Amino acid sequence: MATIADISVAASINILSAFAFFVAFAVLRIQPINDRVYFPKWYLKGLRSSPLQSGAFVHKFVNLDFHSYLRFLNWMPAAMRMPEPELIDHAGLDSAVYLRIYLTGLKIFVPIAVIAFTVMVPVNWTNSTLEHSNLTFSNIDKLSISNIPHGSKRFWTHIVMAYVFTFWTCYVLKREYETITSMRLQFIASEHRRPDQFTVLVRNVPPDPDESVSELVEHFFMVNHPDHYLTHQVLLQPTLIYDEVSINYGKTLVFGLSNLVNYLLKLIAAERLKIDNNAKHIMPAAFVSFKTRWGAAVCAQTQQSRNPTLWLTEWAPEPRDVYWNNLAIPYVSLTIRRLVIAVAFFFLTFCFMIPIAFVQSLANVEGIEKALPFLKPIIEKKVIKGFIQGFLPGIALKIFLIFLPSILMLMSKFEGFSSISALERRSATRYYIFQFINVFLGSIITGTAFQQLNNFIHQSPNEIPKTIGVSIPMKATFFITYIMVDGWAGVAGEILRLRPLIIYHLKNFFVVKTETDREEAMNPGSLGFNTGEPQIQLYFLLGLVYAVVSPILLPFIVIFFGLAYIVYRHQIMNVYNQEYESAAAFWPDVHGRIIIALIVSQLLLLGLLSTKDASQSTPFLITLPVLTICFDRYCKGRYEPAFVRYPLQQAMMKDILDRTREPNVNLKDYLRSAYIHPVFKAGDDYENNLVSEDEEQEPALVPTKRQSRRTTPFSSKYSGSSQSFPYEVDQNLQP
Amino acid sequence: MATIADISVAASINILSAFAFFVAFAVLRIQPINDRVYFPKWYLKGLRSSPLQSGAFVHKFVNLDFHSYLRFLNWMPAAMRMPEPELIDHAGLDSAVYLRIYLTGLKIFVPIAVIAFTVMVPVNWTNSTLEHSNLTFSNIDKLSISNIPHGSKRFWTHIVMAYVFTFWTCYVLKREYETITSMRLQFIASEHRRPDQFTVLVRNVPPDPDESVSELVEHFFMVNHPDHYLTHQVLLQPTLIYDEVSINYGKTLVFGLSNLVNYLLKLIAAERLKIDNNAKHIMPAAFVSFKTRWGAAVCAQTQQSRNPTLWLTEWAPEPRDVYWNNLAIPYVSLTIRRLVIAVAFFFLTFCFMIPIAFVQSLANVEGIEKALPFLKPIIEKKVIKGFIQGFLPGIALKIFLIFLPSILMLMSKFEGFSSISALERRSATRYYIFQFINVFLGSIITGTAFQQLNNFIHQSPNEIPKTIGVSIPMKATFFITYIMVDGWAGVAGEILRLRPLIIYHLKNFFVVKTETDREEAMNPGSLGFNTGEPQIQLYFLLGLVYAVVSPILLPFIVIFFGLAYIVYRHQIMNVYNQEYESAAAFWPDVHGRIIIALIVSQLLLLGLLSTKDASQSTPFLITLPVLTICFDRYCKGRYEPAFVRYPLQQAMMKDILDRTREPNVNLKDYLRSAYIHPVFKAGDDYENNLVSEDEEQEPALVPTKRQSRRTTPFSSKYSGSSQSFPYEVDQNLQP
Repeated sequence: MATIADISVAASINILSAFAFFVAFAVLRIQPINDRVYFPKWYLKGLRSSPLQSGAFVHKFVNLDFHSYLRFLNWMPAAMRMPEPELIDHAGLDSAVYLRIYLTGLKIFVPIAVIAFTVMVPVNWTNSTLEHSNLTFSNIDKLSISNIPHGSKRFWTHIVMAYVFTFWTCYVLKREYETITSMRLQFIASEHRRPDQFTVLVRNVPPDPDESVSELVEHFFMVNHPDHYLTHQVLLQPTLIYDEVSINYGKTLVFGLSNLVNYLLKLIAAERLKIDNNAKHIMPAAFVSFKTRWGAAVCAQTQQSRNPTLWLTEWAPEPRDVYWNNLAIPYVSLTIRRLVIAVAFFFLTFCFMIPIAFVQSLANVEGIEKALPFLKPIIEKKVIKGFIQGFLPGIALKIFLIFLPSILMLMSKFEGFSSISALERRSATRYYIFQFINVFLGSIITGTAFQQLNNFIHQSPNEIPKTIGVSIPMKATFFITYIMVDGWAGVAGEILRLRPLIIYHLKNFFVVKTETDREEAMNPGSLGFNTGEPQIQLYFLLGLVYAVVSPILLPFIVIFFGLAYIVYRHQIMNVYNQEYESAAAFWPDVHGRIIIALIVSQLLLLGLLSTKDASQSTPFLITLPVLTICFDRYCKGRYEPAFVRYPLQQAMMKDILDRTREPNVNLKDYLRSAYIHPVFKAGDDYENNLVSEDEEQEPALVPTKRQSRRTTPFSSKYSGSSQSFPYEVDQNLQP
Repeated sequence: MATIADISVAASINILSAFAFFVAFAVLRIQPINDRVYFPKWYLKGLRSSPLQSGAFVHKFVNLDFHSYLRFLNWMPAAMRMPEPELIDHAGLDSAVYLRIYLTGLKIFVPIAVIAFTVMVPVNWTNSTLEHSNLTFSNIDKLSISNIPHGSKRFWTHIVMAYVFTFWTCYVLKREYETITSMRLQFIASEHRRPDQFTVLVRNVPPDPDESVSELVEHFFMVNHPDHYLTHQVLLQPTLIYDEVSINYGKTLVFGLSNLVNYLLKLIAAERLKIDNNAKHIMPAAFVSFKTRWGAAVCAQTQQSRNPTLWLTEWAPEPRDVYWNNLAIPYVSLTIRRLVIAVAFFFLTFCFMIPIAFVQSLANVEGIEKALPFLKPIIEKKVIKGFIQGFLPGIALKIFLIFLPSILMLMSKFEGFSSISALERRSATRYYIFQFINVFLGSIITGTAFQQLNNFIHQSPNEIPKTIGVSIPMKATFFITYIMVDGWAGVAGEILRLRPLIIYHLKNFFVVKTETDREEAMNPGSLGFNTGEPQIQLYFLLGLVYAVVSPILLPFIVIFFGLAYIVYRHQIMNVYNQEYESAAAFWPDVHGRIIIALIVSQLLLLGLLSTKDASQSTPFLITLPVLTICFDRYCKGRYEPAFVRYPLQQAMMKDILDRTREPNVNLKDYLRSAYIHPVFKAGDDYENNLVSEDEEQEPALVPTKRQSRRTTPFSSKYSGSSQSFPYEVDQNLQP
């Protein structure tokens, strides 16, 4: 058991390393040569095309203004300065709401920490159970529930506190859900005309011997939505050849082999003509557009055909959010895919240790010597042997954990979701379950997930919370260390962007020829909801579980949320590229997972107290999860529809507004090319590029201000984002 | 353990008693005096106004045609003769589909019984495990899985059979679901114009300081459904006084006190005027009607307002299906009511024995003597003492079980469902859960539900199927007796209608003055989905659980399904009044419960086999429930929407058809008075009654052919039911 002194030492080390990261970041970010690594967002928005430095050649690479070094932490207040509405305008609602997850953490845990320290710490501390027992203990344990004697009346404090914390958490959750719901509705309402507001994705168009898919779609919607149907776009399946040709073409363009290019261009055109005319490439799905938002809202929310597996309609995702490969999966296939993935995920979660243990058993010194005998003399050397024995067994697990998010993403893709945001949400759910079982439970009850599962199957249901609950106070110091290493240092490492920094400079040195190349080398990354959110949820879980048991954990969690909020606000403002806009569609998931954490914490407290001869508390503690579930159901009914459906009242209001403002807009033209497979679009781009380059005859290395469309986010083309950037932090660096 | 001879004796007794019921029925039904008891359906439909006998006075009461006594079982083929489409026309889709539940039972269990007897009985019989053991056993046990030695390879037969039975059950279920889905859609499509096709129930209209509810509703739908809104009806809350006056008025009418009647009529009119003008009586809900079915379908399926708890829309139930008292419950109250009822039902299911045991402990001889000492001399008599000791303890339980369906119905009403069909469906679900826990599990593991719950909490999850599974083969004879008593004799008793028969003749003798009274005395009863369906489900459960374990049970179940099918077909044709038409909305529940029975049977087999040293079978058996759940999810996606939503394609087709057929129909007039609270309607009826009786001046006792509207089902007013009745069984009784 660690003492407070141990924890203080560990905390100091982690604070120092986090501080070192921040200092390194502060120095690196003001070097003009790193500008594209630390401020790519502004480049992508087209608001910045070169470092804001001018003057001597050296100034292009190194910042010699020593004043700026003194203000090395001023990015923190700068990150806080942009107000939320402007942040939404700048980085999208998704990012702004993502930041609110951290804020929610602060709102929940700051008051809980204050109450816990004023009420529960004295109650726990003023006992001497541990001193009279034979157990080894530290001062940290004296602060926890372990210090209360069995059957003590003081447990009522903990029960009352469990109620207080539950009500407070629910109150914060309800207010957040309310705020975010109205933010979402307002965002959707206040936005400019967007193709997805008028468009519905239709899947599972039935085959027809007499009509083509396009005709069939047109006739169906002409008949069934006569007053509202406007137009539609059939989905084309690009062939492999076409795909390859495009890619080759992209490569050759770099080297300027224009003869080959011309030849391939013709090939592409011919191939495209074939696709357009070939019924086999037409997928049984379409984007159907309506004259009004009302018509689209109606079509998306209703069932079209007698057979509910045909003519499936749903809101079209944003054009850049569409995941094209999954648009044409038949209904039966979807059911089977879900089953397969459910089974696969079960085995992944509970049995992933088996192959890794197998690899570990192979990757020892004797195993290598047997397989590759000629390596024997090298391996037998003491240093290398030590390295192999100490390092190799762990590396299989590390590699697996690094690839886990990608594996989960692949699973979601196989499952057949039609938008990138849905893919990320599903992956996040799976990642959370994996972390819950293998990190949270795995750390509390040591042993692999499969051993746990086996234990749980052979235990009675009311033994499980006891087993886990009893171990919880003992693991407080472990989780404190975990929060400092994974949370504090992890967040500080995030802002340094060491990997993108190195890769950018390498690419810049070896590959980059044109401005477009440089733009591609920039790699701003994105928010990464599928890995980021489950990690935050782990902190919610730890905070709620330990709030009553060992409140000493709470300050560490509060610091994590505060630090992460500032860092990610800075990153969202200056770095991350917005890949899509789902208008905060992920909030019901976030809310649901915090509720799960709350219920887990209540059940574990119930289990813990039932081992402490405080069984008269059981009825009070069993009421808590029932109330929490009821609260969750209320929220589901009250707020969730705003994230799934689109109220007709709002659609109608927006329609009327549009009609009075711009009565003569040609919606059909506007929607014609909104949903086109990126392959075909890319072809267009290349053609345009070629033409413009031929015309302008620019030398390849001169930087141009024209942005390649491939990396420019959609919003900069359609939404009129503000052209001034008063909150951009580097303004004050100009000489 | 009962031997085959014991079972045969019990079977003979039950067959004889069932036969006695049938003979009694055959004799009673052809007496003209009982005509209204055994053929009320035809009276209600207006196709029969007096017994089909003519001639001497005696002939009016007793059937003297002795030929008809010889053909005393010919109601059975007669019941089968009406084809299904005509049955739907005659008794509604609900009844026809209800009969299909029995047919489904036959389709599932006849082939299963055949296979089980040809394959599994020989496999079980040709062992001598039981003979070599010390256990007492009978020949029945030799037919069961108990006769297979531990660890035998013969268990593979049972595993393969479990697969075969599962696939067969799923196949039948899928085909039934498919058939019933298309029956439902066709029924809705082929029907004549009905008010509920054009009408949507709007609840939770928000309060507005400036506008009345009626104006608010009109404006809201004028704005948000401008092309489709037609009219609306605001709901009025009848006051208590008005209600009472109506009832008193109804009573006084019977005695013909016309002065009082006139006075009360004026009172009613005044009260009604008050209600119409008083905003307090207007409920925040309305029936909104649209110009087209398309418009109504759109409104019912979409969200109207930004706040998803306001302006809630759903399909209006049929006018006679509306449960008026629940139309104005606010959203938050609904959430709380559901929580309260969930908790109450939990305690009802698991703790209902506690108050009953308390009553039982009071209701013994000593208790009565203490409370009422003057009864001592009577009670001390031996006969009475024996009666009290033998009978009283059981009577508390019996009374509780008789009132259970009403208690469950009250619970559903409190929960706030807005249609009678939904109330019955929810009550059926609860009744099924109660029976599953207290009859099925309670018979297998003797002990109260609360003791079971306690056991299960303290057992590990994989012990539970073992505990139950092991006891299952031993309970086969008990359940055989149960099927014969509750199933066979119960069904035969149903057709005799002893209670309505006695009550009818008592009423006829003492109360009946007018033809209307006689009609009210008739009491045809109705199908009673809330009690009938859960009972059938118990037989599905028993059949599926015992199919692999003790196939001897199967013939008894097959006979039950066959007998019940014929009896209920007869009753539906001749007796039951159709209270509402939900177009088979209950089928998803029926399907779901058979799936549950299937999964329970698979888990119990898994538990049973794991105690038989056949653990290598576990992976094969655990796959079965996974596949079954997957099948269920497929069915949910594929068929359930037809029971929840209304496809726009179909609505549009029907609209176009209507428009071409009857272009000039005045829909507004047609819908104006479709949804009026029955209290106000009843007032109208009485007024009409009064006027017409004044005009016609008929003597009170002369039978009139005019039907009182109170008991006439809705369909006979609106749907043009066929006026010929070739399948009516009593045609051949005419001389």
